[in-house]
Amino acid sequence: MKKDIEKIKKIDVQVVEDIAVGAALLGTGGGGDPYVGKLMAIQALQKNGPVELIDVDDIPDDALVVPVAMMGAPTVLVEKVPSGKEIFKAFDSLQSFLGKEVYAVLPIEAGGVNSMIPIMVAAEKKLPLVDVDGMGRAFPELQMVTYHLYGVSATPMVLADEKGNSILLHTISNFWTESLARNATVVMGGSVMIAIYPMTGKDLKRAGIRNVISYSVQIGRAIREAHKKGEDPIEALLEVTGGYMLFKGKISDVQRRTTGGFVRGEAHIDGIDQYKGEAMTINFQNENLIARRNGKVVATVPDLICTVDAHTALPITTEGLRYGQRVFIIGIPCDKKWRTEKGIETVGPRYFGYDVDYIPLEELNRG
Amino acid sequence: MKKDIEKIKKIDVQVVEDIAVGAALLGTGGGGDPYVGKLMAIQALQKNGPVELIDVDDIPDDALVVPVAMMGAPTVLVEKVPSGKEIFKAFDSLQSFLGKEVYAVLPIEAGGVNSMIPIMVAAEKKLPLVDVDGMGRAFPELQMVTYHLYGVSATPMVLADEKGNSILLHTISNFWTESLARNATVVMGGSVMIAIYPMTGKDLKRAGIRNVISYSVQIGRAIREAHKKGEDPIEALLEVTGGYMLFKGKISDVQRRTTGGFVRGEAHIDGIDQYKGEAMTINFQNENLIARRNGKVVATVPDLICTVDAHTALPITTEGLRYGQRVFIIGIPCDKKWRTEKGIETVGPRYFGYDVDYIPLEELNRG
Repeated sequence: MKKDIEKIKKIDVQVVEDIAVGAALLGTGGGGDPYVGKLMAIQALQKNGPVELIDVDDIPDDALVVPVAMMGAPTVLVEKVPSGKEIFKAFDSLQSFLGKEVYAVLPIEAGGVNSMIPIMVAAEKKLPLVDVDGMGRAFPELQMVTYHLYGVSATPMVLADEKGNSILLHTISNFWTESLARNATVVMGGSVMIAIYPMTGKDLKRAGIRNVISYSVQIGRAIREAHKKGEDPIEALLEVTGGYMLFKGKISDVQRRTTGGFVRGEAHIDGIDQYKGEAMTINFQNENLIARRNGKVVATVPDLICTVDAHTALPITTEGLRYGQRVFIIGIPCDKKWRTEKGIETVGPRYFGYDVDYIPLEELNRG
Repeated sequence: MKKDIEKIKKIDVQVVEDIAVGAALLGTGGGGDPYVGKLMAIQALQKNGPVELIDVDDIPDDALVVPVAMMGAPTVLVEKVPSGKEIFKAFDSLQSFLGKEVYAVLPIEAGGVNSMIPIMVAAEKKLPLVDVDGMGRAFPELQMVTYHLYGVSATPMVLADEKGNSILLHTISNFWTESLARNATVVMGGSVMIAIYPMTGKDLKRAGIRNVISYSVQIGRAIREAHKKGEDPIEALLEVTGGYMLFKGKISDVQRRTTGGFVRGEAHIDGIDQYKGEAMTINFQNENLIARRNGKVVATVPDLICTVDAHTALPITTEGLRYGQRVFIIGIPCDKKWRTEKGIETVGPRYFGYDVDYIPLEELNRG
């Protein structure tokens, strides 16, 4: 992550456009479709006015904060658009169960939908949004948040579907939460809305990844302004993120299946330009997990592997990958909270079943 | 059901022995293993003293009553004995969520375990037990209760496992409840404890099947006393239940698999005595569903198909069926609430996937 993040204080429709782009990039292929997410947030902002974005340090230590999100396979959401009511049901049920007013809401991860849902809830509930999340990117499972690394419990959590069903979970571990919630999500049709990891301001200060919404805005804005000025948006993107160009190519094959509540698959890319004659493979589970160039690993989780359109630099989600697309693959170093022993154990390549040690992106791509 | 039921007013250890036998018979192969269930109830009675058994009419119309039960494949329970705490967690969570004191508890179905759990909860919580249930027998799915026929919602309900996980469900229909709870049960290890169908005294009066605990006692006692007096316990059983002898034979094959949270399978029986040369097949899903003698249907759900030991008249659960056992198959007419259009739609043979119309047991076995 680049060092100097200009902090945003207010989220209006223009800012949402930038977040949609920046968060989808940080979503590394997952986190939901930016188009659907943006529509939901813009509608709420037009109805209720802008949302105040507050800093983690503005939250009292004993205040209650709640991340809200979509859970499930992003492929499903494209066809099963939320009714817009279920996220409020999840939020209201959790607040009422906890018997305490929620002070502010926040995203659990960055992503086209999951950065937008908290904006929608903040707008409707007239609550501030916190400039923080639990990943600094997107990950497929519920325990894959920095909150988990710091011992915060995912439950009590509420899942709500568009039909009107809801579930309140209480578990003994965040792995049980993932298992029970994932299964329920599949039964409920493949995607649901959730209110999860209710925590105090004090815990959020320790465990959150700060300024990530402002960072998304900065990414989206850099790409937008480059387009406007006729400059290279890819250059702007690499500049603002401190990212690495890992590959340039044309998608030659995508295998994708929605199973067990996830989209799993892999994309094959034939090189173009300086990568002509070379090949890249990317494996994903909602999010891009591991990138190999000519069989050699060049990036793995938890570092970010982002697929962007070669011309516009706009991010492409794993469900948006199509044969023949010209894409650039960008690697971005993850937050340092993930580069700890527990971090790598939780979201490193071995957790996802790859017999590969985690080596930081910068080392893999040195010189 | 035979007409004159002598009403029991108090449940002590001796009464529990009789219930264990009677309820396992009414459980028609399901409802859990009587041995495990009995141990749990006796322990609670020895610690807390006898439980008061009250009539449905003793409950104020606006009082809250709650059925408590085990959910899942009975085969699992044999190996995964409950910790004894999870049922109280389910009960306490539901009571606390509803914000109202529970007036009395009751069984949801008859069965070796599911008749005992409410006794255990009543004893520990110093609450009366109601002489009623929602089936007058056992059935495999949550919506298969007379409460459902009368429009009572299964939720809010709580599921709790022996590890400490719990789930509060809110659904739009009892079919969604079944689907979500069944799935969660599988994830939680195959069996859980539940508090479900919270309802008013008024609803229970309309929708319950009355005096079913007293009836279980009567069945158990009739068999016990026949043994004591050296009389034929099978005769006593047929006498007290008004049941039909459908077959006498030796089990030649049992196919059984635990799948999707149920035990499904079929038993083949070769005839003995007057049925020599004949054959019976019984299909089950936790409970016995359909009995065919020489290929001809002689009994179907919702009528009761009970397998008993040929010598002792003691009921055998579907997971207790063994090659070579000598068994009698008894048919008992179900409660008249099931013999309605909605009743047959809910628990008739077609619901379970059999291309067979429901014909009352008495008609099928006339003359």
